Amino acid sequence: MTTANISMTQQLQPLMKPSSVAIIGASTSPGKLGSVMAQAMSSYDAPVFLINPRGGEGMYTSVEEASTAAGHPIDLAILCIPAGATAASLADCAKGGVKAALLCAGGFAEAQGEGYQYEEEMQQAAKETGIIILGPNTSGYFVPGIGLHASFVPGVAEIPSGNIGVVSASGGVNHATCFRLQRSGVGISAGVGIGGGVGVTSADIVDYLAEDDNTNVIILHLETIPDGPRLVSAVRRAVEKKPVVAMVIGKHDIKEFAERHTGSLATSWHATRSVLEQAGAVIAEDEQEMVEMAIALEHQRLAPQRDPGIALLTGQAGTGLIMHDHLLNAATRFTQLRQETIDQVESLLPPMTFQHNPVDTGRPAINFWEVMKAVINDPGVSALGVYSIVESLVHLPTAVEESGALGKLPVVLGTDSITSSTDKVIADARAKRIPMVLGPTAVARGVKALARDGHAQWASAQPQVAASSTLASSLFDASPQPIPASDVQLVLGAHRDPVFGPVVTCNLAGTAELVSQPVIHLHEVSEADADRVIRTISGSQLLHDAEGHSKVNPAELAEILATLGQKIADNEDIDHITLKPVSVTAQGLKFGTAEIIYRN
Amino acid sequence: MTTANISMTQQLQPLMKPSSVAIIGASTSPGKLGSVMAQAMSSYDAPVFLINPRGGEGMYTSVEEASTAAGHPIDLAILCIPAGATAASLADCAKGGVKAALLCAGGFAEAQGEGYQYEEEMQQAAKETGIIILGPNTSGYFVPGIGLHASFVPGVAEIPSGNIGVVSASGGVNHATCFRLQRSGVGISAGVGIGGGVGVTSADIVDYLAEDDNTNVIILHLETIPDGPRLVSAVRRAVEKKPVVAMVIGKHDIKEFAERHTGSLATSWHATRSVLEQAGAVIAEDEQEMVEMAIALEHQRLAPQRDPGIALLTGQAGTGLIMHDHLLNAATRFTQLRQETIDQVESLLPPMTFQHNPVDTGRPAINFWEVMKAVINDPGVSALGVYSIVESLVHLPTAVEESGALGKLPVVLGTDSITSSTDKVIADARAKRIPMVLGPTAVARGVKALARDGHAQWASAQPQVAASSTLASSLFDASPQPIPASDVQLVLGAHRDPVFGPVVTCNLAGTAELVSQPVIHLHEVSEADADRVIRTISGSQLLHDAEGHSKVNPAELAEILATLGQKIADNEDIDHITLKPVSVTAQGLKFGTAEIIYRN
Repeated sequence: MTTANISMTQQLQPLMKPSSVAIIGASTSPGKLGSVMAQAMSSYDAPVFLINPRGGEGMYTSVEEASTAAGHPIDLAILCIPAGATAASLADCAKGGVKAALLCAGGFAEAQGEGYQYEEEMQQAAKETGIIILGPNTSGYFVPGIGLHASFVPGVAEIPSGNIGVVSASGGVNHATCFRLQRSGVGISAGVGIGGGVGVTSADIVDYLAEDDNTNVIILHLETIPDGPRLVSAVRRAVEKKPVVAMVIGKHDIKEFAERHTGSLATSWHATRSVLEQAGAVIAEDEQEMVEMAIALEHQRLAPQRDPGIALLTGQAGTGLIMHDHLLNAATRFTQLRQETIDQVESLLPPMTFQHNPVDTGRPAINFWEVMKAVINDPGVSALGVYSIVESLVHLPTAVEESGALGKLPVVLGTDSITSSTDKVIADARAKRIPMVLGPTAVARGVKALARDGHAQWASAQPQVAASSTLASSLFDASPQPIPASDVQLVLGAHRDPVFGPVVTCNLAGTAELVSQPVIHLHEVSEADADRVIRTISGSQLLHDAEGHSKVNPAELAEILATLGQKIADNEDIDHITLKPVSVTAQGLKFGTAEIIYRN
Repeated sequence: MTTANISMTQQLQPLMKPSSVAIIGASTSPGKLGSVMAQAMSSYDAPVFLINPRGGEGMYTSVEEASTAAGHPIDLAILCIPAGATAASLADCAKGGVKAALLCAGGFAEAQGEGYQYEEEMQQAAKETGIIILGPNTSGYFVPGIGLHASFVPGVAEIPSGNIGVVSASGGVNHATCFRLQRSGVGISAGVGIGGGVGVTSADIVDYLAEDDNTNVIILHLETIPDGPRLVSAVRRAVEKKPVVAMVIGKHDIKEFAERHTGSLATSWHATRSVLEQAGAVIAEDEQEMVEMAIALEHQRLAPQRDPGIALLTGQAGTGLIMHDHLLNAATRFTQLRQETIDQVESLLPPMTFQHNPVDTGRPAINFWEVMKAVINDPGVSALGVYSIVESLVHLPTAVEESGALGKLPVVLGTDSITSSTDKVIADARAKRIPMVLGPTAVARGVKALARDGHAQWASAQPQVAASSTLASSLFDASPQPIPASDVQLVLGAHRDPVFGPVVTCNLAGTAELVSQPVIHLHEVSEADADRVIRTISGSQLLHDAEGHSKVNPAELAEILATLGQKIADNEDIDHITLKPVSVTAQGLKFGTAEIIYRN
């Protein structure tokens, strides 16, 4: 629903900060949706008009009547009425000057049957009136900082105001996510459930939250995506200003992928994750990780850097191993601490505990903050994760403060204890704006999010590699040449993703293609993107030598991918291109000609 | 530390239910460990004697003195003293009749230097005195039901008594896990941190908890495993009586695995998970999942069955998709609901919401329990997961009761709301012994655990397949024959795992071997084990036709694996055996002779 040259803040003002509100289908019968909504909106600090055609105490019979009585147009209409009554109501809204409407009801196209007609009428009314639609089929949205609770769900009014913005494909997941943040002691700037998405889309809300000064990090939950390029550009713009944590639903499509038996085709679940990561988002595996990552990023962010080095400090060895395991598995780099740091830490700890990184203090002693100080002063450390069970000698938020880490280095704290103790220490941490979560895995997830966001900012700033006409000649016009054998061979490809358009893919050749997903990127690739391909491909270790150096030159890979991608971007009649095998040799990548498959 | 013919309940009675206790190194100075421990143990309902060589008010100078004064031997000694003083103290303990000792201190072999000497002296003293040792280097253990809190960690006394038993490689993880259970509103029967494990091992505690009437489910956290076969047999025995949920640390060894570039060798992280699953444990990915799985299994368990069918019921579509995605990815089977169920559900719901399974009610209405009743009455449903945000019209625990599910079908509930609401509904669920967790992913994990435990019980009861001498002749003695080509080829193997002994392996042949782990099983295999191999191998879909039927006969695969495994079990001088390729054909598995590599 974007309009050029007007900021999303202005465009969505009638929705996100309306000067006045009408509730259509308002009711005074307790329990009715229109009554619940009226009650929920009573906290909003602007005029709220209740509309019911049957009238009643405090009710207007139409938006037009309410607007006339008020002497000004009404910004937002919240429709608590059935699908069949929606189009007519929107026409009345327009007469009252309404600019945005929340449609809570289901029963449109997704219900089939007469729902198709209601959908068509509603869309027609929206078009004619120019009213911006949120929904239909959503349980609503809320902006706690201004008391705007356009939701039927009990408890919404108790979600505190904070700095995490949530946009979700689903009203239910929007609420569940914001409740989980509340339970974690964290507030939100806004929480929006997109629902049917006939007007306002996730990309619009990402744009809005990117501009919103109260939002420090954006949580993005996605199901299907109507407009991939629009979403990608919104995420790219947002990441320049603040982190985006994204979770994508639809993993089970992996079965379909596998049945298709080819590395050059893939489903949108995998493509969406891969492309969003390329666009700069931090990808979360489930809703709990999504919340923990956002908490880690709410008040801090790494400077853009290619390869952030992280350190862990633990009060208990076993929990340190859990964090270590998680982060190694996520390919996060552990900083090799400098000798000065090692000496300092050794002087502070009993001899048996110190294992360089993670730093295991054994049972945390009164000098825990000094150990922390030594680690954060190591110039190789970009971010620090700290975990300890609540112990009498150490109060983690105070230790962070004493260590001098505040404002110097991003830190994620984690703990466990009985509920009363953890609630207290988490509240203390929050008062100092230090993220604190429960359990070692949550700390690891937070640190991973910091590192990935730091890398993403760096990668986003790298220039796009141009397609090469020389390379194109040899790929597409030359006659096939013998390809030298090698220990490792790749299959590269390009195809047109139904959601994202032209994309390029990379996988190991052979049966590996059958068991692992390719890396999929938009065809506009940088060297940083090629670098990510080399690091994240299944069997990535085969592309690296014993010292961890890549056997593939990212610049070379980027140019091939860019050339394959440009070819498909320029030729609408090509279905997909496969380049296979590509031998990884000491003299670079060796390959023959590409196979081009045209559309029927 | 097992002794034949005496039950673990009897053997560990001095540790887990001591008739009297001595605290060595007790202190009256607040803050000292010996003082904290004395305070923690004051809740124990049996005589507790404080021992300090320097004497003091209420102190005895030796265990012997305390025993003499009491007129009876003392069962348990808790040593809050440095490593160097341990051996001498154990000698004193023996004079006081002590049968078990908790060694909290570190500073033994793991500290190197003089720690080696302390370790040797301590082990020698343990041997001479026959005292059963828990530790060293552990923050202790607790049995809340009898007020036994042998731990320094603050808050332990507030962990409620319940029916989940915890045994952890690490004292820290033991505490963190029990605290997390407390936060989830759940109590424990016992929580034990193994630490150094010189005496009591994880396997011993698994045996003990398997016999313990207060324990309904066992949580098992593992790092390194000293005796694989002992652990496997303990888990097998336990699973006959109650579920075991296991988490294994050390995933990062996957790098080492990959560097070795062969499917027939693997690290103990992967082997441990694979073998424990074969033994009947439910494998958890992280400590949060471990807790959620145990909660789902605390008061319910599926009957043994090959292929449990599950159903999901959701109040919000988006959260239903999250659960669905998680379970499809975990290869859990969704029940195809019968027409009668579908008709019943359709009559209860608005037309647009119902999608068979998961059943999406749209916003949950007052008849939510009727929908639930229809689903649980479907004979194809083995277990049900239910999620809804807290809504005014539905109270999930009451809905379960009204549906008639209690005692009929295992159910896992999940919700989200503001903290005060979720705390209340979770407490209500617990009062009815219905597991209730936060968030859709946690529900999916709980249902997954139920299904895996049901399958594991069935699989454990299947008979072992014998090695075939005919097959052995063709595998090991025949001259190589041409192998027919096929779309899918396997590599089978057998080797000697350093922890578990002879194991067999299966993977897809080709580069798939380089990017995915083989399935690893103990060489004693049943058809059920071979069936699990076919289902869980990477690229499993390639071994199934479009209807999901296996292209590989489990009986045939089991016999080959059994024969390969028997060969290595019988021949100590064989390092490993590889059978490659094994073609999957419509006429069965086709292969040549096996390659045998002997030890140097």
